Amino acid sequence: MANIITVSREFGSGGRELGKRLADALGFAYYDREIVTTLSKETGMDADVLEQELEQGVQANFPFHFAQSFSQLSFAPDTSVNILALQTKLIKEIAEKGDCVIVGRAADSILEEYHPFRVFVCADEASKLERCRQRAPSGENLTDREILHEMKRIDRARAFFHDTISDHQWGEKDAYDLCINTSNTVIKSVVPAIAAYYRLWKETA
Amino acid sequence: MANIITVSREFGSGGRELGKRLADALGFAYYDREIVTTLSKETGMDADVLEQELEQGVQANFPFHFAQSFSQLSFAPDTSVNILALQTKLIKEIAEKGDCVIVGRAADSILEEYHPFRVFVCADEASKLERCRQRAPSGENLTDREILHEMKRIDRARAFFHDTISDHQWGEKDAYDLCINTSNTVIKSVVPAIAAYYRLWKETA
Repeated sequence: MANIITVSREFGSGGRELGKRLADALGFAYYDREIVTTLSKETGMDADVLEQELEQGVQANFPFHFAQSFSQLSFAPDTSVNILALQTKLIKEIAEKGDCVIVGRAADSILEEYHPFRVFVCADEASKLERCRQRAPSGENLTDREILHEMKRIDRARAFFHDTISDHQWGEKDAYDLCINTSNTVIKSVVPAIAAYYRLWKETA
Repeated sequence: MANIITVSREFGSGGRELGKRLADALGFAYYDREIVTTLSKETGMDADVLEQELEQGVQANFPFHFAQSFSQLSFAPDTSVNILALQTKLIKEIAEKGDCVIVGRAADSILEEYHPFRVFVCADEASKLERCRQRAPSGENLTDREILHEMKRIDRARAFFHDTISDHQWGEKDAYDLCINTSNTVIKSVVPAIAAYYRLWKETA
């Protein structure tokens, strides 16, 4: 079975960077935005609209009783559910292809049967705020309060999306193999040790 | 400043084994039961009675408003608070001595000013149950239900003890640098990678 690592992350924690560097360190394929790009090609929908639909559409249109039986889905009553079903199919195809790191998209739950190595990346507010400031497009002058508000909104959406199709809560440490707090941590520096941890874990798992 | 690693852990997760192996891998001193043994010598109290007093006495005698100002404590109104103050003093002395791994005893909060590397060790119920069974004294024939009940009781006591003298919750992932889930994991195998992670983290912290 392929080596599969899923990376879930709080917004601003550097989870994407960690996932990319981990994939590079291990020589695995890396998937994040690539999933939406592929969906965009398959559906003909704009990638940004797709992201928005996945985030907001799920919250607006996904009734709880329906979410419960999502894994058995064989029909598609609306766009957001259509996209979700397509994304799930795509993530499973990626897992079948070979060794990979997948960031976000509830891949930890979608790929449960593949027994992925599940990483969660978090950080304290000050550290996430600092990272957001560094990555902000020039000319964007949000206040700390505005950034924090946006950070929380995005994490709420991620949690909602995840919990809709999972039987455990997003960010609940027991549901991950390793939770990494990147506050006071240089991600680039610690990635080799995370790669080593994964290799040792996989050898005996 | 000394290298200080604190290991908090759910009962049955193998946190003690992980802490001991990590200390050995790094060549650091290891403290767990040693703290109570020293307290026992200093107070003349039996070590088991001391453990019980620390666990149950704190729950019974520690009023919340008092806990809030524990760090400024300069008097000792009852035995459990006396012992707590002594233990806090002892843990700070240990931190001053040199590189160490300290398991439990809210050392992550007591030593906050030393910026320790804070590890939390957890595992799923099945895995903790299995570990408890393996470590049970011969002749002990508890049912799964009884073991689970005891596991939860001990973790509740640990959480209460910790949260009494800390400003963050026991087991809340954001308050640790690394949360390690030992389910499906051979602790002995992954410890070298945890040691490597610590070294890399410390270099850039």
